[in-house]
Amino acid sequence: MTHEQAFTELETLLGPRFSRAMAERDLHGRNETWFPLTLPDAVAFPETTEEVSAILRICHAHDVPVTPWGAASSLEGHALAIKGGVSLDMTRMDQIVEVRPEDMLVVVQPGVTREALNTDLRATGLFFPVDPGANASLGGMAATRASGTTTVRYGSMRDNVLALEVVLADGAVIRTGSRAAKSAAGYDLTALMLGSEGTLGIITELTLRLHGQPEAISAAVCAFDSLEAAVEAVQMTIQMGIPMARIEFVDEQVARVFNAANGTELPEKPHLMVEFHGSDASTAEDAERFGAVVEEMGGAGFAWAKTPEERNRLWKMRHGAYPACLASRPGCMGLVTDICVPISRLAEAVAETRADIVAEGLVGPILGHVGDGNFHAILVLDRDTPQELDRAKWVASRLAERALRMGGTVTGEHGVGMGKRKYMEAEHGPGWQVMGAIKSALDPKGILNPGKLVP
Amino acid sequence: MTHEQAFTELETLLGPRFSRAMAERDLHGRNETWFPLTLPDAVAFPETTEEVSAILRICHAHDVPVTPWGAASSLEGHALAIKGGVSLDMTRMDQIVEVRPEDMLVVVQPGVTREALNTDLRATGLFFPVDPGANASLGGMAATRASGTTTVRYGSMRDNVLALEVVLADGAVIRTGSRAAKSAAGYDLTALMLGSEGTLGIITELTLRLHGQPEAISAAVCAFDSLEAAVEAVQMTIQMGIPMARIEFVDEQVARVFNAANGTELPEKPHLMVEFHGSDASTAEDAERFGAVVEEMGGAGFAWAKTPEERNRLWKMRHGAYPACLASRPGCMGLVTDICVPISRLAEAVAETRADIVAEGLVGPILGHVGDGNFHAILVLDRDTPQELDRAKWVASRLAERALRMGGTVTGEHGVGMGKRKYMEAEHGPGWQVMGAIKSALDPKGILNPGKLVP
Repeated sequence: MTHEQAFTELETLLGPRFSRAMAERDLHGRNETWFPLTLPDAVAFPETTEEVSAILRICHAHDVPVTPWGAASSLEGHALAIKGGVSLDMTRMDQIVEVRPEDMLVVVQPGVTREALNTDLRATGLFFPVDPGANASLGGMAATRASGTTTVRYGSMRDNVLALEVVLADGAVIRTGSRAAKSAAGYDLTALMLGSEGTLGIITELTLRLHGQPEAISAAVCAFDSLEAAVEAVQMTIQMGIPMARIEFVDEQVARVFNAANGTELPEKPHLMVEFHGSDASTAEDAERFGAVVEEMGGAGFAWAKTPEERNRLWKMRHGAYPACLASRPGCMGLVTDICVPISRLAEAVAETRADIVAEGLVGPILGHVGDGNFHAILVLDRDTPQELDRAKWVASRLAERALRMGGTVTGEHGVGMGKRKYMEAEHGPGWQVMGAIKSALDPKGILNPGKLVP
Repeated sequence: MTHEQAFTELETLLGPRFSRAMAERDLHGRNETWFPLTLPDAVAFPETTEEVSAILRICHAHDVPVTPWGAASSLEGHALAIKGGVSLDMTRMDQIVEVRPEDMLVVVQPGVTREALNTDLRATGLFFPVDPGANASLGGMAATRASGTTTVRYGSMRDNVLALEVVLADGAVIRTGSRAAKSAAGYDLTALMLGSEGTLGIITELTLRLHGQPEAISAAVCAFDSLEAAVEAVQMTIQMGIPMARIEFVDEQVARVFNAANGTELPEKPHLMVEFHGSDASTAEDAERFGAVVEEMGGAGFAWAKTPEERNRLWKMRHGAYPACLASRPGCMGLVTDICVPISRLAEAVAETRADIVAEGLVGPILGHVGDGNFHAILVLDRDTPQELDRAKWVASRLAERALRMGGTVTGEHGVGMGKRKYMEAEHGPGWQVMGAIKSALDPKGILNPGKLVP
């Protein structure tokens, strides 16, 4: 069998860093949500671009599927090798290659996690802002075009990746972008690779844009009587041009989960969690203007996190929302939705989603990056009650249809993977075939993360 | 001849809006810089997406090249039909389709110019920020991934186009992106089309991100003793996180040209022109902090433009730099370079470029979007001395080599067109072949703007 021949060659290439052991296959067959265990045939652990290139040359010659693996924090089953073949574990490529504070950029390998990078950068006065919550790998964040709590201010991976090194399906190595802040030199291959989820190439190096650590930060949490009031406060804040660094919505169920998980005493109401970055004077002004908006919208319990410790507690609580929601119903698994709509439709979209969840009798706290119009329902499902998963999928399909009807997208930040592929045609129409044509042009044998994203 | 058959069909389709008259061909064979007159065989003036689609179906069937035409403000000969065929004049598709202030977005046809859009938006309190200086069409700005004076704050077209409607080579119509602020739903076809210069499809509609008109604006111009001091002031400003809305560099020769063209009395020294956007308090604070930087770097003659009229005069002067430079040497034509480098290399890049220009005995004022590391030499060339054009091309090739050596790009914002195609392989290596593969996949007959950008 031709796969066997490839595996023999890979073993020769990588030695003990190529494994067919069940323990490794099992580890690389798992995911964070409801997708069932999906075993790859083998796992490869490259340490250099040259090794990634050699692996792909071998797999290309023998038609062996290759599915890249990062920090395994994906929520849509991106990293599962659903056609078998090799799980390409990038975690050993975890070096920070070069820090250039004078150019506000850093060069990293794809296995570096965002927390590791920011820890390393601490002394420079700079930081990398994209924050999806999970301690994802930067390669995985690029591959899924990740965003998160700070995107309203600093943008997503789309805005913060300057250049990439990518190994193509046949092992060829290309470099996209440059170290310049912008370029008009031809097709934006960097942007094409961002969000391609390993279906067009394997990212082996990233040049990332850094930002100055703000001189002053202020953060607060405040409660509203209704979802609509909270969302309207966000809209007013945006329209007034108050520069938010973060503005997060959590509903009353998330507030309850937070209280249970963190010992806080938030009122069981919808909340906004906000943060402002700037100088002492500007953050004070921002906070004052935002306070006026909150007051106008009937917000209450406006509590400022004044010290770094208080702020860290606030965002740690927010980042821990997914595990805390899962823990609120022991033994359950999650299905997390991810639509993003124009902000004028956000309150309506959340309200309709809540109604669907209630109608189906599901547990589904809602939270989101409300400044971007992006929100998640965390559907907490009993593993032993398959009807719950069916009903959750139905709620998710209604959400997708709702997002498209409102002019939005079925995935704001989690990506397509296995979970959203069925909505691609509805979202993109004939554009989905264009994606397929690009895929065929760059990976004619279809060995890169097969079964995902494209037709 | 098969072109004749196509032209007969196009005449039937468009009536008087299809022209083979020499006057129209001549008008659509001209450009803003040194490229010689290049006549298309015919000019088509579509008014709807359906007409663009029908035109492409006809041209596709008969292998007739189609080269889109916007406001003709391109500096790299993008819109010249170098393989003949049809010049597709998009200027009649100039409707603002929908303004949605509540979602901070607008939908426009490609022939709308940026000034027309901003005039229309005035009452909404919103504006479209991308400002390349020329009153370009928004379709052309998207096709060349334009940027300009405000990119340091608001980004380029890459950051401000949410969605596109595009007619492909065979006449198929696709929609890319959505009205949501972000998306992770598959390949970023919007980004792929931005900067594709009409080689992958014809943009027939754009959904653009708007920004709130700042409550307060302050602008200033100040002189420095040296290029290095001016650039260092910019670097310090960036590192301090002072949020500039614009920061432009002009050299002593541009200062002289400004004085001659506008009756100003700027010292004949390098200058920075800056603008801050925000609240009264924040712009005052920004100005004060920037003033301290300027003082530290020995800047002088720090003059604030306090009224809107003074500010408008300042930026009108800046936007008029290209015609003013040309007018400084009557009867001349321009060759404008456009490299973008990491900011730490900017002073060196400008100094080396100046030395090349002096060594070649050319007239070449230098100015640029210094916050992005992007600068232009406006080489002002005698039409009747061909050696000047040869020497200018040599200076330009040295600039391209310099940009790449410094980790930058051969074009920060003007695009590839005819002028930069020869540097594409050096900049992108095997990535240029990937661009070619994408081109072949989407336009196998090669009818869209042939001879530009790709191999």
